[in-house]
Amino acid sequence: MSIAIDVVGGKWKMHLMWVLAEGPVRFGQIRRKLDGVSEKVLAENLRQLEASGVVHRELYAEVPPRVEYSLTPLGVELNKALAPLEIWGDQNRDALASRPGISAS
Amino acid sequence: MSIAIDVVGGKWKMHLMWVLAEGPVRFGQIRRKLDGVSEKVLAENLRQLEASGVVHRELYAEVPPRVEYSLTPLGVELNKALAPLEIWGDQNRDALASRPGISAS
Repeated sequence: MSIAIDVVGGKWKMHLMWVLAEGPVRFGQIRRKLDGVSEKVLAENLRQLEASGVVHRELYAEVPPRVEYSLTPLGVELNKALAPLEIWGDQNRDALASRPGISAS
Repeated sequence: MSIAIDVVGGKWKMHLMWVLAEGPVRFGQIRRKLDGVSEKVLAENLRQLEASGVVHRELYAEVPPRVEYSLTPLGVELNKALAPLEIWGDQNRDALASRPGISAS
């Protein structure tokens, strides 16, 4: 289990993988979807996912420069492996939502 | 995705679920398996998993008292949903192990 946790452990990385699954997105778009993440923490998490080889950062030499983030093929496989976890959450939403510390969002 | 992340997000909880999958275990046994976790952090994470309904804490009124942690039926289902993530890590171990910040343990 350790190796997968090294990649997606932490508060934001699984969320991030989910947002990136929707297709190439820009930094500001990601930040709007992740409620409450600071610019610094988001940048750091994206860098780590890029370093792990699951996220690709593409710089378009426009004026102003545009940067888009997307999943690599390894990242697409990772997201498939994360899908059962989402299904488990959905299936148990009612039971879990009544528990402390769970937002049911 | 959010609801599952509320349950197993963070550095230790997925590890913990994996350790607990092996059967009822005592606090000290868990701590020995999770390299580097402090007593305080482990207790807090176990409490949170118990509050989420995926971990059961059983107190045996012996002298000295014995406490064992195990998975609830909901926790067993959660572990099944986590299995593909472990498989993904194993399958990509070589590619991932060469990356920064990944221990390959």
